[in-house]
Amino acid sequence: MKLKLLYTCMAITGLAGSAIAQETVDQAAVQKIREEGLNHSKVMETAFYLTDVAGPRLSNSPGLKRAQDWAVNQLKTWGMANSKLEPWGKFGKGWEVQKNYAAITVPYYHAIIAIPKAWTPGTNGLIKGDVVLVKADTTTDLDKYKGKLAGKIVIFDTQAKLASGTKADLSRYTDEELDKMAAATMAPAGGPRRQFDMNSPQMVARRKMIAMRAAIGKFLLDEKVGLILAQGRGNYGTTFTTNGASYADTAKAVAPELETSGEDYLRILRLVKAGQKVTMEADIKTEFFTNDMQGYNVVAEIPGTDKKLKDQVIMIGGHLDSWHGATGATDNAAGSAVMMEAMRILKAINFKPKRTIRIALWSSEEQGLFGSRGYVAAHFGDPRTMQLKPEQAKLDAYYNLDNGTGKIRGIYLQGDSAAGPIFKAWLAPFKDLGATTVTVGNTGGTDHQSFDAVGLPGFQFIQDGMDYNTRTHHSNQDTYDRLSEDDLKQASTIIASFVYNTSERKDMIPRKALPTPPPAAPAR
Amino acid sequence: MKLKLLYTCMAITGLAGSAIAQETVDQAAVQKIREEGLNHSKVMETAFYLTDVAGPRLSNSPGLKRAQDWAVNQLKTWGMANSKLEPWGKFGKGWEVQKNYAAITVPYYHAIIAIPKAWTPGTNGLIKGDVVLVKADTTTDLDKYKGKLAGKIVIFDTQAKLASGTKADLSRYTDEELDKMAAATMAPAGGPRRQFDMNSPQMVARRKMIAMRAAIGKFLLDEKVGLILAQGRGNYGTTFTTNGASYADTAKAVAPELETSGEDYLRILRLVKAGQKVTMEADIKTEFFTNDMQGYNVVAEIPGTDKKLKDQVIMIGGHLDSWHGATGATDNAAGSAVMMEAMRILKAINFKPKRTIRIALWSSEEQGLFGSRGYVAAHFGDPRTMQLKPEQAKLDAYYNLDNGTGKIRGIYLQGDSAAGPIFKAWLAPFKDLGATTVTVGNTGGTDHQSFDAVGLPGFQFIQDGMDYNTRTHHSNQDTYDRLSEDDLKQASTIIASFVYNTSERKDMIPRKALPTPPPAAPAR
Repeated sequence: MKLKLLYTCMAITGLAGSAIAQETVDQAAVQKIREEGLNHSKVMETAFYLTDVAGPRLSNSPGLKRAQDWAVNQLKTWGMANSKLEPWGKFGKGWEVQKNYAAITVPYYHAIIAIPKAWTPGTNGLIKGDVVLVKADTTTDLDKYKGKLAGKIVIFDTQAKLASGTKADLSRYTDEELDKMAAATMAPAGGPRRQFDMNSPQMVARRKMIAMRAAIGKFLLDEKVGLILAQGRGNYGTTFTTNGASYADTAKAVAPELETSGEDYLRILRLVKAGQKVTMEADIKTEFFTNDMQGYNVVAEIPGTDKKLKDQVIMIGGHLDSWHGATGATDNAAGSAVMMEAMRILKAINFKPKRTIRIALWSSEEQGLFGSRGYVAAHFGDPRTMQLKPEQAKLDAYYNLDNGTGKIRGIYLQGDSAAGPIFKAWLAPFKDLGATTVTVGNTGGTDHQSFDAVGLPGFQFIQDGMDYNTRTHHSNQDTYDRLSEDDLKQASTIIASFVYNTSERKDMIPRKALPTPPPAAPAR
Repeated sequence: MKLKLLYTCMAITGLAGSAIAQETVDQAAVQKIREEGLNHSKVMETAFYLTDVAGPRLSNSPGLKRAQDWAVNQLKTWGMANSKLEPWGKFGKGWEVQKNYAAITVPYYHAIIAIPKAWTPGTNGLIKGDVVLVKADTTTDLDKYKGKLAGKIVIFDTQAKLASGTKADLSRYTDEELDKMAAATMAPAGGPRRQFDMNSPQMVARRKMIAMRAAIGKFLLDEKVGLILAQGRGNYGTTFTTNGASYADTAKAVAPELETSGEDYLRILRLVKAGQKVTMEADIKTEFFTNDMQGYNVVAEIPGTDKKLKDQVIMIGGHLDSWHGATGATDNAAGSAVMMEAMRILKAINFKPKRTIRIALWSSEEQGLFGSRGYVAAHFGDPRTMQLKPEQAKLDAYYNLDNGTGKIRGIYLQGDSAAGPIFKAWLAPFKDLGATTVTVGNTGGTDHQSFDAVGLPGFQFIQDGMDYNTRTHHSNQDTYDRLSEDDLKQASTIIASFVYNTSERKDMIPRKALPTPPPAAPAR
């Protein structure tokens, strides 16, 4: 097996070769982990509690709180140490939907598929009103609607047409795509962020559009509209959700707003544009929670047992918060359940790690990686100044999972090319499960970036795309049904093995050079 | 062009060759029809009125009535003669949804995607109740639920898992598929229907299942359940609808029943099966219409002008009725709009046909081709006895369109192989629009069968499948957005040209032998 590993490692081009000779894999441990992870898995049960039982897990919502409490308790039950909620800083208001009903009543009855935009208010009971098309490119254009919108349902001309399903919703990486990723020789440029020319025509137009949207929003609120309809992205009944207001306790008031399925939105729009009278009724109730504005992460540990190494920490994580239109199964109950399962597997095989293993289930990832950023700032350092704390030197590696339900096909090195041969060796025992690719390339958009930003080795795995980008990511269809059991078992097993190897390795994972702190953000 | 046509015709194998020499196409007329149909189309406007404006068009519903009245009037406006509603016989009750709201309220709030089954009653206001899983393989199994279901929401264990989108929703015929259809040399057996062995194990099991379902339905009604949840076929928010009771005025009472999206149904089912308490609220209102139980078809004509031929009639049609979950855009506002457009095109080019051209927009196709069968029985003959009426000899051909929004790729001969060379010649000018294939094969499931059953040449065109079978056919997503403008223009143009050619042809379309009347149906 080792011979084969050597061969595999030597085939890597563009990656540092120094680790080749020393990188070994404990095949007996891998076998134990595989047996537990593939044949005695609890990952689907965990995912069931995080999705179906807890419900939507918008940041600081009761649903997230249910999931967090369940996770803390479940990790304890499995024997983890220090299982707790750890505050990471102030987030803002919690919010949830408590009634959601809207229908066309004229020219005929039809209940629509629509979801309140996050952090928007309700309608204060059942309202009925005509639908009015508002067209305004400038604030002056709004004048003609003055005094005419009270209690009305407002719609805008999106000029959109719905896409048809010319491609399969579900996809997995092809060998060619993986080969291409593996062949990448340079990470996209890191370092200081690109400077935007704030006076470019595009940026001027963008600022104008944002200002106009804000002006329209304020006008509609002042005019006391009953409800705003926005066209949700998606088709065939799948509707993607966003937020319609800030979660900040100082957020400005907005009017109630529904993200409406493309089919329902465009039907209403076509009727109104053709001069047909359309009347709707709606009853939306949303609730804000302001008792505790603090944000929390779930953390739990398997303490290290080696006198010299136990102060060093391996972290794994994924974000537990979700959007509100469904139960955030692939974004990211999947990653959370897999990480919990990886911990469970290691406990189940009675692993006594040299280094300490810590799981973190982040919150408020969806609003800007807040949970992980807050954690990193508290423990490791400030990416704005690159002032580092002592713990920074003790964090061995952070592994993240947040690209849906697809199985692991490999790992992004995030530019840390020295880690390549190590991971290549660690992946070798999982070739039969489809995980082989090490790319020096980056991926973004999730919590490993918070670690990367302070010079820590933070990695996200390469996962098959499945229907993440087409159907589930932030949509009303991100439910338990979307979870692929075999894929989640595979991911749990591989991650447990990576954690095992990281813990037992002689040295910590090699780091890349510390990033340059970005310049102060330009004024906007 | 003619040389090319001859060449094309001679390439047909297995079709009678007698028509080859004589079949010519008036290229100037084709050009006029193409110009009007492709560049001055009104088909999307027509479709808009039949879908968005009229709404769902369930048989005998107010929505169907709106569409019928609009069509009669529009055909008149375009200058058609004898535009009217023609009764075809007794159908039964009309029905529509007037309120549709259902949500989980415990363990958290979530409004579900669900549609009342057609012809089921409402909940008589807002109800709230716990969800109860009913498991019963025998009527004895029902005993344990006695006295426990009043006001409850009932769910069954469907053991289903949702499919993922591994194939594209949208498809068009490939050249290979069309070649295969063209190469078919035998129509599937027609004649008397296959005799079922009513005592086969399968039929016994089937009768038992149907009887058990009826027994459960009666039990639930007697127990005064609040609402039944059924799992609707479909995924990602698309839900297919059915009926939950008979439309007959003598129909037995049933309990309210919702066809629930797979995602919502399975979420509730998983929770209940795991012993989690689930409470729901629902407010369903449906209305029955019993003032006029008669069924009607829309008919209109362009009268023939040739003294000898004007008594001969070419008919075109499609069914106007739909299911109730959406606006039946592809099933079958598409076919109805195309047929209306074909009539409009022929009027617009000021065509004075030799024979009479008649459009019929059927109703109650979805319940068993009732509109077209009633029409055929009234005008042409009785397929049970093969007693024919004089009009049967005068009906030249019937062309039907009812396979969604896909463009025409050719035509099914329905075993009438003598018509093959004729249609091949007529399709030749539309090769650039993708319509080339003549297959001797059959297709079923729609109104041309009513004509075929009494020995009349009744044809359905081959249409690209698009998302008909995957997303739209009887679903809550069969909306105007699904209509493909270019495809509908193409179909209207080709059908107008077929009608033109049929009208001007020296002889009527050759017929196949009269079918053998089927034996009396076996007792069930």
